[in-house]
Amino acid sequence: MQTVFSSIQLRHAPVHEISDGQVKAAVETPSRAEAVLAQIRDRRFGSVVPPFEFGPRALRRVHSQSYISFLETFWERWTELGRDGEAFPFVWPIRSLRQEPLPDHVDGLLGRYSMDAGTPLGEFTFAAAKASADTALTAAQLVLEQGHPAAFGLCRPPGHHAGVDFYGGYCYLNNAAIAAQWLRDYGASRVAILDLDYHHGNGTQSIFYERSDVLFLSIHADPRQEYPFFLGHADETGEQAGTGFTRNWPLPYGTGWTGYEPALEEACRWLVVYRPDYLVVSLGLDCFEEDPIGGFRLTSEDFKRLGARLARLNVPTIFLMEGGYATATLGINCLNVLQSFEEARRELAA
Amino acid sequence: MQTVFSSIQLRHAPVHEISDGQVKAAVETPSRAEAVLAQIRDRRFGSVVPPFEFGPRALRRVHSQSYISFLETFWERWTELGRDGEAFPFVWPIRSLRQEPLPDHVDGLLGRYSMDAGTPLGEFTFAAAKASADTALTAAQLVLEQGHPAAFGLCRPPGHHAGVDFYGGYCYLNNAAIAAQWLRDYGASRVAILDLDYHHGNGTQSIFYERSDVLFLSIHADPRQEYPFFLGHADETGEQAGTGFTRNWPLPYGTGWTGYEPALEEACRWLVVYRPDYLVVSLGLDCFEEDPIGGFRLTSEDFKRLGARLARLNVPTIFLMEGGYATATLGINCLNVLQSFEEARRELAA
Ligand SMILES: [Zn+2]
Ligand SMILES: [Zn+2]
Repeated sequence: MQTVFSSIQLRHAPVHEISDGQVKAAVETPSRAEAVLAQIRDRRFGSVVPPFEFGPRALRRVHSQSYISFLETFWERWTELGRDGEAFPFVWPIRSLRQEPLPDHVDGLLGRYSMDAGTPLGEFTFAAAKASADTALTAAQLVLEQGHPAAFGLCRPPGHHAGVDFYGGYCYLNNAAIAAQWLRDYGASRVAILDLDYHHGNGTQSIFYERSDVLFLSIHADPRQEYPFFLGHADETGEQAGTGFTRNWPLPYGTGWTGYEPALEEACRWLVVYRPDYLVVSLGLDCFEEDPIGGFRLTSEDFKRLGARLARLNVPTIFLMEGGYATATLGINCLNVLQSFEEARRELAA
Repeated sequence: MQTVFSSIQLRHAPVHEISDGQVKAAVETPSRAEAVLAQIRDRRFGSVVPPFEFGPRALRRVHSQSYISFLETFWERWTELGRDGEAFPFVWPIRSLRQEPLPDHVDGLLGRYSMDAGTPLGEFTFAAAKASADTALTAAQLVLEQGHPAAFGLCRPPGHHAGVDFYGGYCYLNNAAIAAQWLRDYGASRVAILDLDYHHGNGTQSIFYERSDVLFLSIHADPRQEYPFFLGHADETGEQAGTGFTRNWPLPYGTGWTGYEPALEEACRWLVVYRPDYLVVSLGLDCFEEDPIGGFRLTSEDFKRLGARLARLNVPTIFLMEGGYATATLGINCLNVLQSFEEARRELAA
């Protein structure tokens, strides 16, 4: 399996994040991608290729033009005010407040285009997020146009919390949604997204919530207990034309493989019924038992089981990295998924 | 003029606030109230009386029961998790996210019931906010039931940013709205609220936005440039039965008395036309030229002009303190308003 990665993605190097009312050391760091790359090389897993640089169209198919422009021009506006540290928003247009008109002040725009207080915007955030989206698109291209049975987009920053016009949860551009939309635009009739990150992929879900051409399935920590708190419940099954095309499996704190596997099996049954042309896997590794911000208990061995199970779906698959913050083990867990997928797929083909 | 104040209000003593992505020293501190009290004594302005302790009904007329319960039980839930510092929210249910079901986890509830990242919740926040609301109610009672021509509720924490079910901008319970509603419930046909804080009173406006029995007028920094950014535009004039009963005068950064006075005159003309039984003044002092978080240029002398102008309306008036963070001058500016009001009213009566 080929891996797509661009070193531009490393330029987004957050120093801090804000959670629980404290400024803490950032957990979504460049070392995450480096840890995965190191394992790819150690295991001689396959070649690592740089992404093709896509034009603005692919982003615009998912995100609003005003949001993209905000991200793109943010650093200039920020530094014009004499500021030079990474930026955090601090007020949001919740209920009873207006979405329009847009504030002129960058402090207002930060809140208008975000969902949380903890996701930093820095000088290279947009460049890295764009490269991350290109990485996702290139992985999709390897599968769609070059006929690879699978590809891995080593996306960083991640994407699944980002909505049509907001960032949050360390995510800026929704890589999985951008790749899925691109697959639709360039030939696929039906695309499925399986989100395996510990946190619900609220951005991805909301982007496709009223559509039947992109199935969204997610297994994650119960939002009653965990970030993002305000989406990812079992009763969210899509609306309008999308009714029935969203499925969530919120699982309790402490879930291990025994509790996880039945949800995964159910998700796989939905995939078999839907018969997607392509499967996009939002591959978060933060269900790992030692993840510093996750509360599930999957082991490194469980990630092998996960990879093998996905291979048995026998669908062209684009893996895109999402979260996972136990950096020392991140590469192992990620490659356990990918390598077991690859091995199981070869056995299946044989 | 009598001042209402309870020392319980001092128990809310924030240490930090979060803005611009930094944890900073709190500006909304007990010393603000102490500075005003000192001036009241220095000038022998009048007696300071403690508030009557009102029952839960008055709060429930403005805020949702679930929000009040959250504030009331928050500290218990917080400390149950082994946490003991002041709390800050970090994720909000903006567009595409759900308001219901409520999260079980207190971190989710913090975001569900707030609008910004910078307003701390601590052990004594609810007690102080309740005492602050009682202070507002008692000031209203002095005017409504005891026939005082005016009274001053030295409210702290302030209230005007707090909505039906959210806190923010250092505000938890909307003192002005609670007092106005109480006046309506106990005899007044028409109440007007004039919000003179530097920041738009988004909470107060939203609470009465569809009603004609409480007129809401506000002069403040243009939300395109200033907190709260997402409400307070000139085109917001009320909805449904409230159409025409909200008026905003957003003014540019740097506004001094020359720019301020015409807006004040216009607001006064609206008050003359509306002929309220009672006037509630949301008395923020952060339009002061030296305010550390404000951008207007009113001088201490201008606050005298302001007080005298309000007296000429000749309406029973309840002053309730909102913001104002230049603590060294806060008492002087506040008493300049109140004392000039008192003097002008006496001249008028003579
Ligand atoms: Zn995650
Ligand atoms: Zn203010």
